[in-house]
Amino acid sequence: MGSTAVSVIGLGEMGRALAGALVTAGHPTTVWNRSAARGDELVARGALRAATVEEAVGASPLTIVCLLDYDVTDALLRPAAGALRGRTLVNLTNGTPAQARRTEAWATDHGAAYLDGGIMAIPPTVATPRAFILYSGQKRHFEAHRESLEVLGAAEYLGAEVGTAALYDLALLSAMDHMFNGFFHSVAMATSHREGTAAGFTRFLVPWLTNMAQMMPTFAADVDSDAEPSFTQGLDVVLSGARNMAQASRDAGVRADYFERSVAALERQCAEGLTVYSAPEAVRDLRTTSD
Amino acid sequence: MGSTAVSVIGLGEMGRALAGALVTAGHPTTVWNRSAARGDELVARGALRAATVEEAVGASPLTIVCLLDYDVTDALLRPAAGALRGRTLVNLTNGTPAQARRTEAWATDHGAAYLDGGIMAIPPTVATPRAFILYSGQKRHFEAHRESLEVLGAAEYLGAEVGTAALYDLALLSAMDHMFNGFFHSVAMATSHREGTAAGFTRFLVPWLTNMAQMMPTFAADVDSDAEPSFTQGLDVVLSGARNMAQASRDAGVRADYFERSVAALERQCAEGLTVYSAPEAVRDLRTTSD
Repeated sequence: MGSTAVSVIGLGEMGRALAGALVTAGHPTTVWNRSAARGDELVARGALRAATVEEAVGASPLTIVCLLDYDVTDALLRPAAGALRGRTLVNLTNGTPAQARRTEAWATDHGAAYLDGGIMAIPPTVATPRAFILYSGQKRHFEAHRESLEVLGAAEYLGAEVGTAALYDLALLSAMDHMFNGFFHSVAMATSHREGTAAGFTRFLVPWLTNMAQMMPTFAADVDSDAEPSFTQGLDVVLSGARNMAQASRDAGVRADYFERSVAALERQCAEGLTVYSAPEAVRDLRTTSD
Repeated sequence: MGSTAVSVIGLGEMGRALAGALVTAGHPTTVWNRSAARGDELVARGALRAATVEEAVGASPLTIVCLLDYDVTDALLRPAAGALRGRTLVNLTNGTPAQARRTEAWATDHGAAYLDGGIMAIPPTVATPRAFILYSGQKRHFEAHRESLEVLGAAEYLGAEVGTAALYDLALLSAMDHMFNGFFHSVAMATSHREGTAAGFTRFLVPWLTNMAQMMPTFAADVDSDAEPSFTQGLDVVLSGARNMAQASRDAGVRADYFERSVAALERQCAEGLTVYSAPEAVRDLRTTSD
């Protein structure tokens, strides 16, 4: 059973999942949410309800915050700054590295220990072996509360630069967002067929994507290396595929703008004299600043 | 050892992988390529070289074509139409459903059996357990050559409507293309950090994407059903995440146009009164024709 008292501020779907995991693990858990009713089920399971943010922060040495964004976080925490002195604030609200750096500076100014984190889970997978949470900030703060944090999902410490967890979190979310948008696009195409069901198509899709994701470490090694990439594709083959995806999307009554932009970008690269497509080139092409 | 003689037309990277698998499996294999030298290694391993497309088609009951696109396919095969009579043509060239239907009609007019296919593999994974190939067209043609086709990768027959393999192929490639573009974007973000390497980041990325892909059957069931979706997310949470990804990309010197478009689309949906994000809604939003 966990012994450290923990407060959780913000009881959206994710906040409720986090607080629920702490209650299940036996941590004395205090909760606060603007709409108090969101905490009813947790209170029924043994959580304590704080009347104010200040009271929540004061109830535990560790406060975990999971709110909509940093604007909401700022608005709620700033008036409670006095209660934070000598305590630890772990901010799992989704935000940018710059927001994490700014919040760490503010917390430090008020005598609080600060960690920033990114939750790599969806509410139903919190506290399961599928969940992991990225943390950055001073290592001693992480070590002091590691046991409590491990309740929420595998705790991965990324270093003292407090913006790193947010950077990796948003990068991982970007990859997921692209993947799911691809899922939606491919399902829209496949179900344009009169007999096509999303479930029937997904039977092929999941193993296909899972297999192809196994190429990523090879691509990553190519990006990190100055040597010739180990994997390349002819730009003509890539362009032909993109044209076919655009045309087949239009024919299927599915928006093709994503592939029309790809075709335009690939035609530009061909016009510039590129002949092969590689991971380092694809990454370089996304940078707006030169290396 | 395979006994059916097979001809392979087109010896790009993929065509060489296909022909190599047939040679390895013991099929008498005849190859043709515009630049004959591309076949040298295959000939050294026992393949026969045809001097013309017509000679290649005439050498085997089954001809497999894997070329850049259907324009190249048309230009090469049409003059050889006479040789196709009574033989089977399996076209694994990447193309659209409409191109597949047109080519089947042409082949049938010339007395040839026709199957269209989509290779779900990259050249290094051809003939490994990771490869599968989608086929559509008359089932009797598929059954007649199934044994030879299984040499190239697991053969998945999708039905008599000849465009289905191309539709599913392009849909799967679309999902992969999105996933890899997400990989490139996320790596560009993560490596903007002075200590970030693509390999270090990818250690988190592959399990993250693999885990999240396990949600797809749930999303697919939601798309196929008329009931309330089993998985939804607050549109405010999705919009906040998209804004953070756009801002963090700009801050990291990485192109943000993908997320700027997402933000604009999500703001439009919010303005239209939508409050939740679900798979059926995302798929519906991609359709240019109403259901």
